Amino acid sequence: MKALVYHGPGEKAWEEVPDATIQDPTDVVVRVDTTTICGTDLHILQGDVPAVTDGRILGHEAVGTVTAVGDAVKGFAVGDRVLVPAITKCGRCEYCQRGIPSHCQTVGGIGWIFGHLIDGTQAELVRVPYADTSLYAVPESVSNEQAIFLADSLPTGYEVGVLAGRVRPGDTVAVVGAGAVGLSAILTTGLWGASKVIAVDSNKFRLEKALEFGATDAVEVGPGTVADVIALTDGLGVDVSIEAVGYPETLLTAASLVRPGGTIANVGVHGTAVELPMQDMWIQNVTLTMGLVDTVSIPTLLKMVGSGRIPAEKMGTHSFTFDQIDEAYDVFKNAAANSALKVVISPS
Amino acid sequence: MKALVYHGPGEKAWEEVPDATIQDPTDVVVRVDTTTICGTDLHILQGDVPAVTDGRILGHEAVGTVTAVGDAVKGFAVGDRVLVPAITKCGRCEYCQRGIPSHCQTVGGIGWIFGHLIDGTQAELVRVPYADTSLYAVPESVSNEQAIFLADSLPTGYEVGVLAGRVRPGDTVAVVGAGAVGLSAILTTGLWGASKVIAVDSNKFRLEKALEFGATDAVEVGPGTVADVIALTDGLGVDVSIEAVGYPETLLTAASLVRPGGTIANVGVHGTAVELPMQDMWIQNVTLTMGLVDTVSIPTLLKMVGSGRIPAEKMGTHSFTFDQIDEAYDVFKNAAANSALKVVISPS
Repeated sequence: MKALVYHGPGEKAWEEVPDATIQDPTDVVVRVDTTTICGTDLHILQGDVPAVTDGRILGHEAVGTVTAVGDAVKGFAVGDRVLVPAITKCGRCEYCQRGIPSHCQTVGGIGWIFGHLIDGTQAELVRVPYADTSLYAVPESVSNEQAIFLADSLPTGYEVGVLAGRVRPGDTVAVVGAGAVGLSAILTTGLWGASKVIAVDSNKFRLEKALEFGATDAVEVGPGTVADVIALTDGLGVDVSIEAVGYPETLLTAASLVRPGGTIANVGVHGTAVELPMQDMWIQNVTLTMGLVDTVSIPTLLKMVGSGRIPAEKMGTHSFTFDQIDEAYDVFKNAAANSALKVVISPS
Repeated sequence: MKALVYHGPGEKAWEEVPDATIQDPTDVVVRVDTTTICGTDLHILQGDVPAVTDGRILGHEAVGTVTAVGDAVKGFAVGDRVLVPAITKCGRCEYCQRGIPSHCQTVGGIGWIFGHLIDGTQAELVRVPYADTSLYAVPESVSNEQAIFLADSLPTGYEVGVLAGRVRPGDTVAVVGAGAVGLSAILTTGLWGASKVIAVDSNKFRLEKALEFGATDAVEVGPGTVADVIALTDGLGVDVSIEAVGYPETLLTAASLVRPGGTIANVGVHGTAVELPMQDMWIQNVTLTMGLVDTVSIPTLLKMVGSGRIPAEKMGTHSFTFDQIDEAYDVFKNAAANSALKVVISPS
């Protein structure tokens, strides 16, 4: 089979590798029909994730067709159309049972193993461990080009942004950063009845998309960002401030927007420490949440996409075939400049 | 009447001032029978709270007897024994209605006004605005020497530590800092069924008190603090880590103790920014909470004290009369060295 193989910082190649096969009775093998690229893949290519070593097949998102099934697998059969999510889960450790499989103790303490600790999904075939508890059947009402975004980006914005932020009916919500994950939060915040969803970004294309995806207001980043957003509230700030970038300044912006008693939901992946103004924040009765997606909202999201409530297909702005995967990376790396959100990659 | 008056950083005097009187129909005047000193009073005396100006009567905790009642007051009468809590609340603004009167918009955006924005409780008489919604009747089963700690320190440890940290049955809990507020968290964590309560402090007296107040384990601060605490868990850390000091290093310690999916409840009052290791924390699915006490748990705490479930009187280690108030401040300022927790101050 062919796959995108990591060869150290800055180096990757679409090359011939041994076929993925069943190794454990709980495995299935999935033929990848659709995959995509995540910001985390870019971090890996920059050498930011040392656990990813030379020879690793990249990617942790796929929709595909089951081609082989281990002896212990009960829920899936050859030919089934399935969603391979970013998180692999045993289903029986304390973390899985509490609904936090992002920290599944069985698969290594962290549920994100595809393209990280085991071979990933940017390949013609992928081995999926703990298939019964990890895979999701994709209903007919959901296309591959919709389902692929439920593997990671859409549940990330929803779970780590909207759910962790505990958006409630009537709330005002700010989303700092309207990239794929921020837009996923915007696309799903309305489900909880937010009265106002304010997108904050420096890129006009993203702000336009934000309005199209359900934001009620778009604020372009500038010297008066915080004042501009707060002016859109009753003067006290938003109830929930979602950070979807991952830099100190964007987290501090998100923290500046929240009203007393509100929640700052950090979704961004951070590479450095953040100097938090605790001397001002301690008295504000605010909550700061953060985390890796659990993907446990996928069944809910599949229903909402299937019923037309979440137009997930809008996240895919560019399509490529496997042999164009280098080009797909180039476009995604400069997504904002290329007016791109997420790329859709398929065999041919 | 006599009162403790602030005269700028480092300066205070127990001196004659005009009697407290009814100014608004919603006021009552309370004769102070018992008061105490809070860490915040020490901050004020250091000049850390610029909103407190020369001439302000200090203190925000009292138990006393109603001596005058405004025309609009329905719930209290002359002679009633009442608890004057740290937070004054109008009862009708959005924040009061949501149970967050620490940010009561009517009294100035912050519910803590005694000894801050209006004259306080370290006095023979105190004017209490919004008496109907702010005061609490003290039942006979609760003594003044118990009730006084329900004005601030006990609800702070309970609300900002235990409740914000969402302690659940079976949880392991660490409390970093076993001063009055940390001990208040220790005293009330067991109510929620914590399986293990680990006190962390550098002071042996406080650690002894912690064990007496309900901690199951006491860890003396040293080079191996984090490892020592984690060794008392299943190796992953505690479910809830309560910070009750207010320094960057103690917040970082509290953050290091929490397991994935857990909560860090910051109770400490911070004077500086804290460099939070977001590069390690973002993936941990942790929640960081912080805030000012709302004192809305007082009715619950009064019942628990009255029934003997919370031995609040144990917080008072030293007693003084009003004319010894300077001495009381000196003892409280060096509480740990003086084997003191909280001081009890009464007229004579």
